[in-house]
Amino acid sequence: MEINLRGVVEELHARYVHALDADRLEDWPDFFTDNGSYRITTAENEARGLPLPVLYAEGRAMLRDRIASLRHANIYEPQRYRHIVSSPLVQRLDEGRAKSVANFLVIRVMESGESLLFASGRYVDRVALAPEPRYEERVVICDSRRFDTLLAIPL
Amino acid sequence: MEINLRGVVEELHARYVHALDADRLEDWPDFFTDNGSYRITTAENEARGLPLPVLYAEGRAMLRDRIASLRHANIYEPQRYRHIVSSPLVQRLDEGRAKSVANFLVIRVMESGESLLFASGRYVDRVALAPEPRYEERVVICDSRRFDTLLAIPL
Amino acid sequence: MEINLRGVVEELHARYVHALDADRLEDWPDFFTDNGSYRITTAENEARGLPLPVLYAEGRAMLRDRIASLRHANIYEPQRYRHIVSSPLVQRLDEGRAKSVANFLVIRVMESGESLLFASGRYVDRVALAPEPRYEERVVICDSRRFDTLLAIPL
Repeated sequence: MEINLRGVVEELHARYVHALDADRLEDWPDFFTDNGSYRITTAENEARGLPLPVLYAEGRAMLRDRIASLRHANIYEPQRYRHIVSSPLVQRLDEGRAKSVANFLVIRVMESGESLLFASGRYVDRVALAPEPRYEERVVICDSRRFDTLLAIPL
Repeated sequence: MEINLRGVVEELHARYVHALDADRLEDWPDFFTDNGSYRITTAENEARGLPLPVLYAEGRAMLRDRIASLRHANIYEPQRYRHIVSSPLVQRLDEGRAKSVANFLVIRVMESGESLLFASGRYVDRVALAPEPRYEERVVICDSRRFDTLLAIPL
Repeated sequence: MEINLRGVVEELHARYVHALDADRLEDWPDFFTDNGSYRITTAENEARGLPLPVLYAEGRAMLRDRIASLRHANIYEPQRYRHIVSSPLVQRLDEGRAKSVANFLVIRVMESGESLLFASGRYVDRVALAPEPRYEERVVICDSRRFDTLLAIPL
């Protein structure tokens, strides 16, 4: 693993979670390439090769739509996320791209002040390194198959 | 982000949490510069620009006092913390200083053996790099506004 | 702390947890040297100098036996782990070895979909760096002394 490459990808992961945790959701599509895709699935589906993701969005326009709907609907109880990302393994794919796997957990903080473990799993990513690092593909593989409220804020 | 600079700041963060988690509280003031400040606040207060921190201490003498009171009072049930720090973003401020933001969560372990998610949030720091890395300012922004027992051990 | 050395040890930690979290338990012994040892203990025992670990295994053969029994017995409810590792402090011991301490927490995900904070603590390691990084000794010091189900999957 190239130390430098890992540093670059770790910083992308870090900027991504700080944007979400600070409720800067409108910045979220910019972490993806023009045609970048975002998929949430479960470990169970992934293991069984089931094609049906919990959520799929491809291309920045679709990612922007998703955020717009989220802001507009606003049916959810006010909440915040706190992401913890750990144990990245980064490998160069080719000159301009890297792949990465990392563990995550997300704490959900409700307006009441209550905090709970909301989700855990793996990020499996393909990262375009230039002109600046962006996700070409981000797959969020959640450990649990409970998804009652998972469709709120991006993970 | 300079890889080297990030490594230096990450190590400071790491040494800080290992000192607290090992109950070496007397080492805590030494992670700050002579006039270094430590502030605990909430995301809610921070967002509203409310000046009132949950806790504020400035200068090593005051930090030492705080630990002394804590040891003397000792009214709290024996407990341990376990800190997890994630996603540091580090930037050089000037020749001798850096600023850093990182996510954290703290597990509290009671003597009974029970563990619970105690706090989550962000560290927002200004770090003096020489003669050795120390916090010039550490602001602990907690996600939750529940603070019943938060005033025990430093976060 | 040498940045490069830290990178090497962090990658070892990362590969270790991804193997466990993906249920590749048969790969687990290969993270240790031929005579490598693995020990689980509690902070309480460690502080009191009590010699009795919760679990002890030395040498790859014994580590393999442990996994074989685990697979064979299979009395445990299906479960997955998700490891979060944080705040590594790495120091060179001599030409070929390093020591490391890092915080961890482990989420346990049951088949029902329920997730809970399962364990937290410290990894205290001696790492052989060549021919490739492996644990010569891994001591898992758990914060809690509750161990009802801790003997299932390696931590």
